[in-house]
Amino acid sequence: MYIEGKNAIKQALDGNITINKIMVDKNIQGRKDDIIELAVKHKIKFEFVPKIVLDKKSKTGHHQGYIAESVDFNYSTLDDILSLAKSKNEKPFIVLLDGIEDPHNFGAIIRSCECAGVHGIVIPKNRACQVNETVIRTSTGAISNMLIAKVTNLKDAINFLKENDIWVFAAEANGENVYQQNLDKNIAIIIGSEGFGVKKSIIEYCDGVLSLPLKGKVNSLNASVACGIMVFEVLRQRN
Amino acid sequence: MYIEGKNAIKQALDGNITINKIMVDKNIQGRKDDIIELAVKHKIKFEFVPKIVLDKKSKTGHHQGYIAESVDFNYSTLDDILSLAKSKNEKPFIVLLDGIEDPHNFGAIIRSCECAGVHGIVIPKNRACQVNETVIRTSTGAISNMLIAKVTNLKDAINFLKENDIWVFAAEANGENVYQQNLDKNIAIIIGSEGFGVKKSIIEYCDGVLSLPLKGKVNSLNASVACGIMVFEVLRQRN
Repeated sequence: MYIEGKNAIKQALDGNITINKIMVDKNIQGRKDDIIELAVKHKIKFEFVPKIVLDKKSKTGHHQGYIAESVDFNYSTLDDILSLAKSKNEKPFIVLLDGIEDPHNFGAIIRSCECAGVHGIVIPKNRACQVNETVIRTSTGAISNMLIAKVTNLKDAINFLKENDIWVFAAEANGENVYQQNLDKNIAIIIGSEGFGVKKSIIEYCDGVLSLPLKGKVNSLNASVACGIMVFEVLRQRN
Repeated sequence: MYIEGKNAIKQALDGNITINKIMVDKNIQGRKDDIIELAVKHKIKFEFVPKIVLDKKSKTGHHQGYIAESVDFNYSTLDDILSLAKSKNEKPFIVLLDGIEDPHNFGAIIRSCECAGVHGIVIPKNRACQVNETVIRTSTGAISNMLIAKVTNLKDAINFLKENDIWVFAAEANGENVYQQNLDKNIAIIIGSEGFGVKKSIIEYCDGVLSLPLKGKVNSLNASVACGIMVFEVLRQRN
C-alpha cells in the first residue's frame, strides 16, 4: 500500500500505520528535509529515486516528492476502542458502518469522526470498503489517529456494545428526530450503505433509529454527510 | 449534457433542467413505462435505441435503459433566490461556494442544501466547478429543486445580500463557535474551496466567521461535510 505526499506520510509516521520504506525525489537529496529527519528518527529506511519513478507509482498525481510503502493497515478490536474511551475518561462514542462501499465516503467519514472525537469505527469484514490507499488519502491523515475495528458480524458487535452499556442507534429515515434525543451518553451510531441504508435485520438489533428532519424532496443525504451531521450533533450536545 | 437513469430523469422533468430528447432502450418499446408517459405529458421527444447505444453513451454505467439529452442548466439570479424565500414566507437561507472544484463535492452540497431547505446556491463564474453531468448525478436529483445563481464576482454578491438585510458568514477555522451563534435569521453561509477554504479577501466582506469546534488532530472537514453540518445547524435552530 502506498501513501503519497508530505502530510499524509507525516501523519502515518505519527499514527497506526506501519511504514516499510519511503521513496524520496532525488532532487531533494542533500537538502534539509523534515520527512527525512522523521524517517531517521523513526528508523525507517528511505531511498532517493528519480522523480519519474515517483510519477509512475503515484495514483494521485500529488506525491510532492514523497511516496511511502506501508504494510497493511493495523486494525483494532472493539476492546481497544472501549479502552481508548476509558483512558480518556470519556463516554464511549463509536460509529459502525453497515456496508459503505465508496472509498471516498469511507475516507471522509474517518475524517469527520476524527474531528468529532469519535473513539473508533467498526466495519464488517465482507461486502464493505476496507482501508485502502484511496481511503487513506481521502481521510487526509485522520486515519492515523483513528481506531478501526474489522468484525465478522455487525450483529455480534452490536450485542457486545450493548452488553457494555452503550446505546446503539441506526441513522435512518422514519426514526426519532435526532435533535430531540439525548445523545450525551455512551453511544454508537450505525451509518448505512450508499444504496440501501442500514439493513432492516441490523435495525432490529438497535436501541432505536435516529433521523435528520429533511425539508426537501430528496429523501436522503450522502452517507458521509449524514455521518458528519450525526457525529457533530453528539459533539454539540456533549459540549 | 446527458442525464442517466430513471430517477434523475424524472426529477429533471419535474425541475429546472430543460430536456431535449430521451433515448430509451428499445427492449422497453411496447411496454407500459412511466418515463415514456412523462415524456408524452411534457411533450418531450423520445426515441428507442439499441441498448448498446446507451451503454456507449453512458458515463455512469447505470443508465437503466434511459439517457436524456438536456440543454445546459438554467441558472438563476440572486433576485430569483430572494423571491423564492419571500414566496415561501421564510427567512432567506443561502449558501455561497468560494471556488469548490470537485464535482462530487458540489453535487453532495446541492443534495444537502436541498434537504435542509436552502433557497439557493451561489457560485462564481470562474475558477469553480460549474453544473455538469457529474454534479447532476451526484446531487441525486436534488439539483432539479435547487436554484443556482452564477455570479461574476462573489464580493458583489455578498454586498447585494447585505443590502437585502441578510447576514453573511464565512465557514472557516478560528471563528466563532457555530453552536453559540443565533442562526435563526436571514442568513448566507460561504463554504470555501477544498484546498484553501474561504479566501481572506472574501472573509473581509463578511459579517463574521463561523467555526465548528474540532476535537481531533486533523484541522478541517471535507467541504461537503462541513457544508452539511452548517446548513443542518441552521435548520435545527429554525425548528
